[in-house]
Amino acid sequence: MEYKISDKLASMKPSAIREIFKSLTDPSIIAFAAGNPAPESFPVDDMKRIGAWIFENEPVKALQYSITEGYPPLVEAVKARLKNKFNIGRDFDGTIIVSGGQQGLELACKTMCNEGDVVICENPSFIGALNAYRSNGAKLVGVPLDDDGIDTSLLEKALKENPNAKLIYTIPTFHNPAGITTTLERRRELYNLAKKYGVLILEDNPYGELRFKGEEIPTLKSMDEDGIVIYCGSFSKVLSAGMRIGFVCAPSEVLQKMVVAKQVEDVHTNAYFQILVDHYIRECDFDAHIEGIRALYREKSSLMLSELDKLKDTGLKFTRPEGGLFIWCTLPKGISLDSFIKEAMSRKLAVVPGTAFNCDVSAPSDSFRITYSTPSEDEIVRGVRIIGESLKELSK
Amino acid sequence: MEYKISDKLASMKPSAIREIFKSLTDPSIIAFAAGNPAPESFPVDDMKRIGAWIFENEPVKALQYSITEGYPPLVEAVKARLKNKFNIGRDFDGTIIVSGGQQGLELACKTMCNEGDVVICENPSFIGALNAYRSNGAKLVGVPLDDDGIDTSLLEKALKENPNAKLIYTIPTFHNPAGITTTLERRRELYNLAKKYGVLILEDNPYGELRFKGEEIPTLKSMDEDGIVIYCGSFSKVLSAGMRIGFVCAPSEVLQKMVVAKQVEDVHTNAYFQILVDHYIRECDFDAHIEGIRALYREKSSLMLSELDKLKDTGLKFTRPEGGLFIWCTLPKGISLDSFIKEAMSRKLAVVPGTAFNCDVSAPSDSFRITYSTPSEDEIVRGVRIIGESLKELSK
Repeated sequence: MEYKISDKLASMKPSAIREIFKSLTDPSIIAFAAGNPAPESFPVDDMKRIGAWIFENEPVKALQYSITEGYPPLVEAVKARLKNKFNIGRDFDGTIIVSGGQQGLELACKTMCNEGDVVICENPSFIGALNAYRSNGAKLVGVPLDDDGIDTSLLEKALKENPNAKLIYTIPTFHNPAGITTTLERRRELYNLAKKYGVLILEDNPYGELRFKGEEIPTLKSMDEDGIVIYCGSFSKVLSAGMRIGFVCAPSEVLQKMVVAKQVEDVHTNAYFQILVDHYIRECDFDAHIEGIRALYREKSSLMLSELDKLKDTGLKFTRPEGGLFIWCTLPKGISLDSFIKEAMSRKLAVVPGTAFNCDVSAPSDSFRITYSTPSEDEIVRGVRIIGESLKELSK
Repeated sequence: MEYKISDKLASMKPSAIREIFKSLTDPSIIAFAAGNPAPESFPVDDMKRIGAWIFENEPVKALQYSITEGYPPLVEAVKARLKNKFNIGRDFDGTIIVSGGQQGLELACKTMCNEGDVVICENPSFIGALNAYRSNGAKLVGVPLDDDGIDTSLLEKALKENPNAKLIYTIPTFHNPAGITTTLERRRELYNLAKKYGVLILEDNPYGELRFKGEEIPTLKSMDEDGIVIYCGSFSKVLSAGMRIGFVCAPSEVLQKMVVAKQVEDVHTNAYFQILVDHYIRECDFDAHIEGIRALYREKSSLMLSELDKLKDTGLKFTRPEGGLFIWCTLPKGISLDSFIKEAMSRKLAVVPGTAFNCDVSAPSDSFRITYSTPSEDEIVRGVRIIGESLKELSK
């Protein structure tokens, strides 16, 4: 039988990152590629204790169907935390639990976009989000980033040229893959443009709690007096990625439709882990735990940056993140990305090619993404050395 | 701000059943409405033991990102079980883990249908599936059921009239809500029509293992020599609904695209529970556990049917299921569904109005769905008595 796949999925391929992730089962390869959090960031002992308590005391609640919006005590705990720590959430907003921040992004697109509608994205941007929009038949329009965030004059041009733009997708804090953080001024410009053109902002903030340097900058959602920001957060980088628990705070009118869309995707998020996270937030010292993760990444990013500094002669450029998981490297002129990726892989180093993050899949790139989150200190040193050796080899 | 919701979601409302489920927090209401499995069907002790083992021995595997297709040992275990017990899965098929059978249905539609394409559905049918198709902008064409399954002459008419039909959605075994099981002959006719018109069958079989009476009938997927059946199964009714674990067996070419669609919905299904289910299947006596659930539902359905038999004078008609969770009741002429639902609710009995299961949301119904799975024996007796009292009151 000849299968006629839907137009929106026919041309889509599995995420390059997930595919690379699969190849990382070879332990001899140094993995600068995956976006995984450090395993040390999982509070295993607390989770084990709470997990046992749930099976002992509330097994039916944890194993039976639950409501789509999320386990009510967890919804309340998330709501309170967002309000008290980040000034997020106004009277017109609601909060729900989703199956990872990824689901929030996908639901936002499905809820706001017809096939052919435009999502304006930072370019480069998170491949999982770009593919989520593609899978809903949305058209991506990329706007370049500079060191301060999205280029707002080009953003305004894109808004003018695309009257069917429904969302502006942004990762303002510790950008994936670009490693930059949008300045406060640029956030205000972005917010005002969205308001002026009547387009919702989709703010993706999975790394926001992982600042290890510099000053906190308010989220776009905390500025949202007009009900124009859909905010997606996640516990993946501060508790566990494998449990798939994230949250969305958005204007209730939009959120209600996102709930309907979620209901038909997975009915609700795993109930046992929703109860577990609720207990964790209420009983454990979450802030101290996060401080520990920040310290870990502060140390590892600092090591990676100081090793990268040794490569100055090669002409390699790289960002200096103040938080999150990623460093974005740009190759010196004359070295092609393809040849670099191959050279590094032949030396057992995996990085993610910048092409994976382009809004236009056929566009070229001279950049690649690396992470310090999962490699050991030894691997960080050896991996950066391989980057240097590969550059030297290719500039011969 | 005025929010422009996408066309496909603008008119959608939360599932009536999920909404009723929310109202069931009042313990004085007898719940014949929810589709929840009996809490006795959760093997809590085994899950507790395996769960503790995982936190002790494989915490990182359970808490870290995993691959979209599913935890490989679980995929293998499901594949083997499908093949050995149900003769499901050929060389051209693949198997993946999804976040509940619901996700499989949604992914199948997203993968096969453009907006405006047709999904042919049994009428009535499972509301969660119908809404999943609506949320993807598919058009529903309903074909009536009789006691033997879908009316195949009307199905052929629908196939002729809808050249853009991409899926035939069917629940052949212990139908939700209709409580009937499609005969072997009717299954063959359905299969042959799908083949003739080049339309894929989407076979939904969440209750297939819950036969408590009569003879097993082969699934459509077990007949699938042509690669035209997408099969969705679930652990919700035999292990736990709240963990959200189901599976799909489908031709690999289609399944690969469903994986891409799943990747952008939730990256992967909760990893901890995938490991847990894998251990459960390998270490525990799953068949004996299922036999226990069958015995439970055999007893409870038998009690409900014998109580319903006492209402023969009222003119109420009802199906006699051989498995699954549901009985479908049809009101005597002259009694409106609305007035019956209200009368029953005023007497503290919740049932699901048949209108919820119609492909055409504006179509009327003279039927309602009840379940014996969660109510106690006492509640079954009292609830059926309320049905009788309500009918008597309304026929005055």
